[in-house]
Amino acid sequence: MRATLLYGERDIRSEQVPDPVLSGTGRDAVVRVTAACVCGSDLWPYRGVTHPDVPRRIGHEFVGVVEEVAAGVTRVRVGDTVIAPFYDCCGVCANCVRGVTTSCLELGWWGGEDHWGHATDGGQGEFVRVPHADGTLQVVPGTPDPELIPSLLTLSDVFLTGHHAAVSGGVGPGSTVAVVGDGAVGLSAVLAARRLGAERIVAMSRHADRQAVARSFGATDVVAERGDEGVAILKDMFDGIGPDAVLECVGTKESMDQALRSARPGGQVGFVGVPNGGPELPMRTMFSTNVGVRGGVAPVRSYVEEILPEVLDGSLAPGAVFDREFALSDAADAYRAMDERRTIKALLRP
Amino acid sequence: MRATLLYGERDIRSEQVPDPVLSGTGRDAVVRVTAACVCGSDLWPYRGVTHPDVPRRIGHEFVGVVEEVAAGVTRVRVGDTVIAPFYDCCGVCANCVRGVTTSCLELGWWGGEDHWGHATDGGQGEFVRVPHADGTLQVVPGTPDPELIPSLLTLSDVFLTGHHAAVSGGVGPGSTVAVVGDGAVGLSAVLAARRLGAERIVAMSRHADRQAVARSFGATDVVAERGDEGVAILKDMFDGIGPDAVLECVGTKESMDQALRSARPGGQVGFVGVPNGGPELPMRTMFSTNVGVRGGVAPVRSYVEEILPEVLDGSLAPGAVFDREFALSDAADAYRAMDERRTIKALLRP
Repeated sequence: MRATLLYGERDIRSEQVPDPVLSGTGRDAVVRVTAACVCGSDLWPYRGVTHPDVPRRIGHEFVGVVEEVAAGVTRVRVGDTVIAPFYDCCGVCANCVRGVTTSCLELGWWGGEDHWGHATDGGQGEFVRVPHADGTLQVVPGTPDPELIPSLLTLSDVFLTGHHAAVSGGVGPGSTVAVVGDGAVGLSAVLAARRLGAERIVAMSRHADRQAVARSFGATDVVAERGDEGVAILKDMFDGIGPDAVLECVGTKESMDQALRSARPGGQVGFVGVPNGGPELPMRTMFSTNVGVRGGVAPVRSYVEEILPEVLDGSLAPGAVFDREFALSDAADAYRAMDERRTIKALLRP
Repeated sequence: MRATLLYGERDIRSEQVPDPVLSGTGRDAVVRVTAACVCGSDLWPYRGVTHPDVPRRIGHEFVGVVEEVAAGVTRVRVGDTVIAPFYDCCGVCANCVRGVTTSCLELGWWGGEDHWGHATDGGQGEFVRVPHADGTLQVVPGTPDPELIPSLLTLSDVFLTGHHAAVSGGVGPGSTVAVVGDGAVGLSAVLAARRLGAERIVAMSRHADRQAVARSFGATDVVAERGDEGVAILKDMFDGIGPDAVLECVGTKESMDQALRSARPGGQVGFVGVPNGGPELPMRTMFSTNVGVRGGVAPVRSYVEEILPEVLDGSLAPGAVFDREFALSDAADAYRAMDERRTIKALLRP
């Protein structure tokens, strides 16, 4: 089969690799991927900010159709359309049952290793072996309209990561919200905040194309300024004290600082940007302002059942974050377009 | 009048100072203190960990009777028994109305300065001028039973600070909770967690006298171990993953580390320990575990109305944290007893 591999800084290749086979645990499925995509977090190793061992399979977001299941798989069936979260989880451990599936006691990552030590496929490939098929895969009832595929694919990571930012930030009916980051996750956080009933949502963005998506997703205001100026504008917009929630969707020291300083006293920062460069939080500031910080790697598998019906009935269309499509074999072009910010988010079709 | 002053490291003196007079803002009251106390946070400057300018008035917890009010004071009347929070707040600004009275836009501190730049009295004195009398003082209806005074005094700071830890930690019915710190605040947090419906409450304590108070306040378990061993024991006690909430009531790097590592994935640290020594929070750990951190300086004025009736009807008796009483003139002895951990919390009677 064809799969995408990272070979080093800005070196993505589409290559033939062996087809996946069931591992022998009795709990696998093999999924034929119908759509995958490139994540902002894929750009960290692509840009050489992080340095995983290479070559390695890459990609962690996909939807597809189940091709094969092992004997012990009971919930997922051959022929099912499925959404995979960006990780593999058992669904039954102490953390999974509490809705923290990203802390599954048998957690596995795509393009890494499963709980049993078997290598796993990347999501940007034609097929993927799914180690805990029953715990991991969300079955989509029936055969979804092909036009829904982009929106369904966002439930693999990006929309539900934005949703996690909003949930972690305590967004609810009437909330005032600012979103730091106008990447696909930030835009998704805008949509998620609107869905949760936020009254006013400020997208912090300098790019006209992204501002347009933000407004279509429910942003009531756009602020292009950053740093001290951005903080001052946000404070001014909300009674001189700032919004209730700030959703940090970048992961840099600057973006977290922006978020922490912008939230009103007693407010909350919901963060989902992967912290790269290791910013640490200033306790003393948090103490004096009572601004809470909550978030992390989004337990998307725990959210998908709640959100899926709204995508299927068309009331929620998070797929608008995809503004370019590429053939899987052109994954290198997709990475380049993302890296150069010529696209918000690139969808890959095998 | 007599007041308590800090002169330097382990140098507390009881001295005669001028009686307070109304400042001219029209919003003051003068309160005759009937009971005050020594706070764990008073020990930071006492021990020379922090270095405020000295000599300075000290103490920030008191109950008393209103002696005099300025012309613009409408809610508080001469003769009222009142509880003062450990700060002075207007009650009507954007932060106060949102329940974050510790971020009042006209905030003042006892033994410091008020919003208008006038020096303020310390709480450990015979009289205190209260700059925003209407916003700051909680009136206690009628004339409370003298036996209730210690419990009423805890609403000035210590019990409601413990309550803030529990609220910030998201404690609710059925929660599992661990409390780091067996000082008066930690013990109060145990009681607050029980009041909020926690199912199981672990007090982390090595001292028999404090363990006894913790159990009387509702602790179901006591763990004496700390560090890696303490974390491992807590994980074991709760499905191998740890409790839902950990309440950090100390303020050191070690105690915050203990709290962060003990909470279950997706759990929450509620913190009220004043961060001394500037521990910073490890973002990467918070990201991977989804453990949230929320808390800070407790907006006790915003909680007191809810809790006061339970103290008045005797159903809540947080005053048991006071295990020693001293005359106000013997404040130096009270500080010594607190510093040497010969008392959990010392009450001062003018």
